[in-house]
Amino acid sequence: MTQNVDTLFTNAIVLTMDGKLNQFDPGAIAVKGDSIIAVGPEAEIVKEYSANEIMDCGGKVLMPGLVNAHTHVPMTLLRGLEDDLRLDVWLMGYMLPVEREFVTPEFVRLGTLLACAEQIRSGVTTFNDMYFFEDDIAQATADAGMRAVCGQSVMKYPAPDAASFEVSIAYAREFIKKWKGHPLIVPAVAPHAPYSTTPEILRTCANLAKEFDVPLHIHISETAFEVETMRNEQGMPVVPYVKKQGLLEAKVIAAHCVHIDYGEMKTLKHVNAGIAHNPSSNLKLASGFAPVQKMLETGLNVGIGTDGPASNNDLDMFEEVRLASFVAKASSNDPTVVPAATALLMATRMGAQALHIGHLTGSLEAGKRADLIVVDTSPVHNSPRFRRNPNNAYAQLVFASKSTDVTDVMVNGKWLMRAHELLTLNEADLLDQAREIAQKIDIFLTAREQSVLSKLIALGGSMEQESFEVQVKVKVTEPDLLVQNMKRPEIEINASKHYLQYDEYYMFEDPSQGRLRFREDNLLNEKGDVENVRSRLTLLGQKREGEIGHDVLLSRSRFLAPAIHTSRFYREYFKPTQVISIEKDRLRWHIKYKETELFVNLDHMKQPDMGYFLEIKSRTWSRKDADLKAELVNELLNLLGVGNAETVTKDYIETLLS
Amino acid sequence: MTQNVDTLFTNAIVLTMDGKLNQFDPGAIAVKGDSIIAVGPEAEIVKEYSANEIMDCGGKVLMPGLVNAHTHVPMTLLRGLEDDLRLDVWLMGYMLPVEREFVTPEFVRLGTLLACAEQIRSGVTTFNDMYFFEDDIAQATADAGMRAVCGQSVMKYPAPDAASFEVSIAYAREFIKKWKGHPLIVPAVAPHAPYSTTPEILRTCANLAKEFDVPLHIHISETAFEVETMRNEQGMPVVPYVKKQGLLEAKVIAAHCVHIDYGEMKTLKHVNAGIAHNPSSNLKLASGFAPVQKMLETGLNVGIGTDGPASNNDLDMFEEVRLASFVAKASSNDPTVVPAATALLMATRMGAQALHIGHLTGSLEAGKRADLIVVDTSPVHNSPRFRRNPNNAYAQLVFASKSTDVTDVMVNGKWLMRAHELLTLNEADLLDQAREIAQKIDIFLTAREQSVLSKLIALGGSMEQESFEVQVKVKVTEPDLLVQNMKRPEIEINASKHYLQYDEYYMFEDPSQGRLRFREDNLLNEKGDVENVRSRLTLLGQKREGEIGHDVLLSRSRFLAPAIHTSRFYREYFKPTQVISIEKDRLRWHIKYKETELFVNLDHMKQPDMGYFLEIKSRTWSRKDADLKAELVNELLNLLGVGNAETVTKDYIETLLS
Repeated sequence: MTQNVDTLFTNAIVLTMDGKLNQFDPGAIAVKGDSIIAVGPEAEIVKEYSANEIMDCGGKVLMPGLVNAHTHVPMTLLRGLEDDLRLDVWLMGYMLPVEREFVTPEFVRLGTLLACAEQIRSGVTTFNDMYFFEDDIAQATADAGMRAVCGQSVMKYPAPDAASFEVSIAYAREFIKKWKGHPLIVPAVAPHAPYSTTPEILRTCANLAKEFDVPLHIHISETAFEVETMRNEQGMPVVPYVKKQGLLEAKVIAAHCVHIDYGEMKTLKHVNAGIAHNPSSNLKLASGFAPVQKMLETGLNVGIGTDGPASNNDLDMFEEVRLASFVAKASSNDPTVVPAATALLMATRMGAQALHIGHLTGSLEAGKRADLIVVDTSPVHNSPRFRRNPNNAYAQLVFASKSTDVTDVMVNGKWLMRAHELLTLNEADLLDQAREIAQKIDIFLTAREQSVLSKLIALGGSMEQESFEVQVKVKVTEPDLLVQNMKRPEIEINASKHYLQYDEYYMFEDPSQGRLRFREDNLLNEKGDVENVRSRLTLLGQKREGEIGHDVLLSRSRFLAPAIHTSRFYREYFKPTQVISIEKDRLRWHIKYKETELFVNLDHMKQPDMGYFLEIKSRTWSRKDADLKAELVNELLNLLGVGNAETVTKDYIETLLS
Repeated sequence: MTQNVDTLFTNAIVLTMDGKLNQFDPGAIAVKGDSIIAVGPEAEIVKEYSANEIMDCGGKVLMPGLVNAHTHVPMTLLRGLEDDLRLDVWLMGYMLPVEREFVTPEFVRLGTLLACAEQIRSGVTTFNDMYFFEDDIAQATADAGMRAVCGQSVMKYPAPDAASFEVSIAYAREFIKKWKGHPLIVPAVAPHAPYSTTPEILRTCANLAKEFDVPLHIHISETAFEVETMRNEQGMPVVPYVKKQGLLEAKVIAAHCVHIDYGEMKTLKHVNAGIAHNPSSNLKLASGFAPVQKMLETGLNVGIGTDGPASNNDLDMFEEVRLASFVAKASSNDPTVVPAATALLMATRMGAQALHIGHLTGSLEAGKRADLIVVDTSPVHNSPRFRRNPNNAYAQLVFASKSTDVTDVMVNGKWLMRAHELLTLNEADLLDQAREIAQKIDIFLTAREQSVLSKLIALGGSMEQESFEVQVKVKVTEPDLLVQNMKRPEIEINASKHYLQYDEYYMFEDPSQGRLRFREDNLLNEKGDVENVRSRLTLLGQKREGEIGHDVLLSRSRFLAPAIHTSRFYREYFKPTQVISIEKDRLRWHIKYKETELFVNLDHMKQPDMGYFLEIKSRTWSRKDADLKAELVNELLNLLGVGNAETVTKDYIETLLS
């Protein structure tokens, strides 16, 4: 008597990816309900089991579905939006502004369904996500029939789904309660990264994960800059820092780990943390080469992920598996490391273990859920086939198979794709909706990119400042004498400061865009040491608004923002056609003269060497006020002994350009 | 009146890849005969041209066919044969032995047709080949309708198609004469690499290429080892060396250039050499990261190649283009280098220029041959699509398109694929033939791998040596006294030598395989300095053949080969289950005693420290002779004052194992 099951897979090259890497050719598998009942040589299995549905695999490969160990699925909708940029420009200049504007529950649902369609097509059965509105992501994933660890993001910044960290934590708690125990979804909490959270956030997230015994998903040591900053600010690398916050008491899934040292690997191994290695993303963003071989030698479970499709730009795990092997070989200068079988293991059983769901999926073994895929290795790009040793089968899959060779996909005992046909998703409809969103994003960004001003606003934190100024500038030949004259009793000094100023002026093809000035102000103390550094970005109108008489000008600076990024960031973001740098030493007095507040600057133009200049400035609000102040300024010039000095009507930058 | 052409492509996103990177959306192209007549906005083109065949591209991308700048097409038949090995083990241990056995004109024809099928499917219209029997490769390529530069290999070693270099050169000359002027095939000469040729070969090949004005295809600086060896032996890196041989007077296509410096780049640029960058191969074989960004900055034409499918393991140029961008970014630590447009340019116009056929192909421009492909960028893995800036289109192709997205291919005005259907090749038939060859290769290698002996023979250069020996070994407590006794008048010394010997013994699971000994003999001069190093490989039977009396043994060593590779090579190639290393100091005398030649060794076993031993040996050829010599040996032991010493019946290695 044979035992009856639901589905019998026959006539397959079965790669179990189990502990012994058993292969059966021809092999067969029996599936009942959501689980695998038996795996073995075809002759044995068909003797023992019968089924209503017999799936003749036609000599194709039958193997566990791939595990995508790190991604942000809704970002399918931002795929190819902007590429070939540095991480900060890409993230702060494009991703975050667009996310602030567009990310809603509907957005993440659509993006998730698109990602599921792509991943099912390419043989992924399980993925590990981190994004916003994770409840909607989990629902969409369950609707598509895929397995996922869904991590609700928590950050110190306002997010599209939460105005504060407390709101996200509350959301995460409800989310975990709701989904805990679901047959497909494993809820998780995802403190975004050490640099985007606080010790309190990390501790709270770890406690939440422990309370519900769910995984904790976090980015760790993705860039060298992140590690350097942590060392400078905390005196330790990233893993000890998160350990100090109690984070490693949870079931951690650490994405990236590009820049961790041997001690950190041992620490992570000790707490059984899973690693998600993302070769495409690390290459494309030039994050570095993760020490995969060393992590494997340490005994860590290293899975493979695509990262979000906006930094990849797809969810193709066949590509990632190949790259995991390629990159490990090249970066360790040893072509024997991470051989095909190891790479495939990382994308299956070891990947599932890294996600702390190794008991559920990742290999074809009796008792595990039926998450499996059929791969055709007969196309011309994978022919001929050698069968001499067991590695030949893994090499075919890792070095020459394409994701489009996946023909059939089953998750949790349910068919999601048969003969390249998706069964749970309406692909055409999803593509239509995605097209609409992309058009809206294109319009939003196109409008923003039309002017330097709107690009500046998109970065956030800038303020408009309508500052009309009375201003005069004269050449100074005897600066010491002028400093003496500043002590005259008619001049009441409120404050005096000494700066070293580094300015970068960004010029644009269209002069009506104005000029952007990146200024780094180094405040010097009496000894001449730097006491404080402040950077500001100012968008300046392209010309003066008017002149009063011959010498006194009215000007307007339009927009002001604290420059929280480097000048390199702004150059790459604004893409000026020309950049001019100026270095000057500035003595600055805030004075009162005849009850009127004025600013006096004595500038020593050091780079380029242009000598000394005196500037007198005062804010104004009407033409009449401006006329009065212009008169006071002229008086002051005489008082300072430069009444007859040559007047300069141009900005330093204009002098340099002319 | 409209002008009549053969084919009109309409409703396409036309990426011309011309000098201005013009894009037309919707765009159109007119093709007449083998050439492109016009390219432009659809509205303009359809007003000017009419055609019998209108190809509505349905909004897909229409672009120049990809140029695979370096490959060995017949190696499709060796794809996946053996992977994850070091270059030397892979090449000397597997590729060369199989090539020696299987490569024939029929083999290269089949392998070429398979490669054409794969390349047409993946949007390649032109490739640059280097292999044996290139005449048959050229014919197969022309039959498939593809464009190719076909380089006939020339080496200093015997090749499958030539017993000597003179024969290859003669073959190459006839080959070039025959194909020069063909509409699809550009014949070329391909001196394999500086290390596998001689100055004379390089000079002769350069002269041949100049005589017929055809390209010269060569591997340059693929590995650091190659460059180091060249520096040691010639006192210069690789490019100056080939320049010295006059090679750069030809139209050079230099494959790899992983390890060239800035001076070498300038030299190559000066002579307008083309570069073929092979990212997958360089990663998989851990050859290193080619300085692509620096080569581009130098102004070199850098194309992209797959290398042979045995070291890749496919001919997928979409993968290579993506990797060219990824690897350049990661290795230069700058995500802005080799952006999508540049990577695609390298695989099209710049690739064609690198092959010195930029006037024929590589971009969609009036006057060039009609080599073009249609790519569907609407599948779910490439959706949605942003259109805000021109880079979006390149990013889609480079970062998310798959080779399977290519739907239609035309070369030289002739359709090779329509809607995924190959028109010039019978794919099923090719796959059947390939399967047969693979089975034969599997059988050949399986037989070879059955014994250590056959693997040793497969490497070449080994000789059988049936050496029966009379041998005795005793422990020595007073080595200085023994050295004194060697001066006794009864002993006639023919020669005496002093060696440091490093032995590695490889043991195998099946002891009947015998043991392999890798011995490095360091001959020392009187000062104790190393004068000469020689390495040998000896396959030893697993036990002694017999004993004479109690002390004197008969032994046989079976196979002997000069060890031209490193011990690391042999360990990886033979995969022993155990390796034991021994280091000893040996004083060796070749003596005559009573008209009989004998060898006397005084061994100081240094590592592991086992003390001193005396060995007396003599070759023998009959049992009777052996009995006589055994008696002489015993006499000699007494003469040397060790007649009563403890006899050792085991080899050093057996003592260590027991």
